[in-house]
Amino acid sequence: MRNIVLEIAYDGTPYSGWQIQNNAVTIQGIIEDKLQEITQEQVRVLVAGRTDAKVHALGQIASFKTNCRISEEQIKCALNSMIPRDIRIFRVFEVPMSFHPRYSAKKRWYRYIINNGPEPIPFFKNFALWIRRSINIALLNEYSDRIIGVHDFTSFATLVDRESTEREVYECSVTRKNDFIILDIVANSFLRKMVRTIVGTFLELEKEQAGPERVTEILKAKDRSAAGKTAYPGGLYLVKIFY
Amino acid sequence: MRNIVLEIAYDGTPYSGWQIQNNAVTIQGIIEDKLQEITQEQVRVLVAGRTDAKVHALGQIASFKTNCRISEEQIKCALNSMIPRDIRIFRVFEVPMSFHPRYSAKKRWYRYIINNGPEPIPFFKNFALWIRRSINIALLNEYSDRIIGVHDFTSFATLVDRESTEREVYECSVTRKNDFIILDIVANSFLRKMVRTIVGTFLELEKEQAGPERVTEILKAKDRSAAGKTAYPGGLYLVKIFY
Repeated sequence: MRNIVLEIAYDGTPYSGWQIQNNAVTIQGIIEDKLQEITQEQVRVLVAGRTDAKVHALGQIASFKTNCRISEEQIKCALNSMIPRDIRIFRVFEVPMSFHPRYSAKKRWYRYIINNGPEPIPFFKNFALWIRRSINIALLNEYSDRIIGVHDFTSFATLVDRESTEREVYECSVTRKNDFIILDIVANSFLRKMVRTIVGTFLELEKEQAGPERVTEILKAKDRSAAGKTAYPGGLYLVKIFY
Repeated sequence: MRNIVLEIAYDGTPYSGWQIQNNAVTIQGIIEDKLQEITQEQVRVLVAGRTDAKVHALGQIASFKTNCRISEEQIKCALNSMIPRDIRIFRVFEVPMSFHPRYSAKKRWYRYIINNGPEPIPFFKNFALWIRRSINIALLNEYSDRIIGVHDFTSFATLVDRESTEREVYECSVTRKNDFIILDIVANSFLRKMVRTIVGTFLELEKEQAGPERVTEILKAKDRSAAGKTAYPGGLYLVKIFY
């Protein structure tokens, strides 16, 4: 048996997220379906980051186990020829059987893009959150500094089970490029909707020109209602998983 | 009465083109509908280029006549607040009553974008035609040279009425930028589907490595069946109208 990794990019706009669901078009659903046709086996695809509906990925990592003898290059070509063009498999390679895309991952890098200008750029409707008012990047970076390190992120997450709520954020920074604001965040792992809740909260705090100590207070509250809204999914990109 | 011009950009992906139709969402339909709400008048919007379904625009020009006394800036703000974010009005200004967006136009600039790489970039599914095989740009430029000047473009058009079929192409050139090939074409005006038929034909000729004299032969045939297929609409952009 082989353990095969897929490196995947996708435009999440038309999909109900990664995870397979009944009566919904999902990326996992499409890929499992086509891998079953290719391998003629029952295939279960594991993934590093279960992105939500409309969230994009540049370097998603998925894996599946198979007894088939089709080469990695053939799997890549066959799969790409069968799936929609807004989902692309960029690399296929074999890894040790012990590799698990989620449990083996050491760090995840997500990016959130804001279109910050007097009018939204029409071509970015599905690819960035639009905000008209001028955003204070320096303040967003002060907020970012407050979440770096090990913290309990209960306030910034939609909890789905009793998993640990402690995470380590290694990097969080905000930059401007013309009419775009880019927030990059790297952590050992993320709780559900954590990046979007961080972004939504930072934007609400920035709007009221709150001091960065407010971020620390929200973290300490360990209560989702202490934070702000979950930001628009179309602005979020899973950039890279580090192993 | 005033004659008001709108400068418009749109992502054509979700729309059935510019022109108003029953039971279809069109850009003209949306804009006329909202202008009627704003002006409280029956509004008829004229346009420079009636783009087809899925075709995009960066600098579309439309106009309408009104007796209302709302300022241009207010019209722009009101309209932008009422229409979807993938359609944006960038400028609104008054022009003499004699101005007609189509008849007054001197030149039109269209751009066609091809994603030319081993795999399509997933985020460009609706914004470029994808072609895997390596394209010979020099040959496309030789073809382009053959259509510059005054010609009867019957072979490259879907004819809808008995209008004149002679057009003057001022510029036509092809450039490469990384995995993208960009064809820019400027003419006094275009016949229906002319740019897409030129692109589709050039790509078929390039695939068979045909010499540029073939383009001249196709022009001379004055027969649509002499040319190639109409290329995918999502790669086409109306860039600018010159007056």
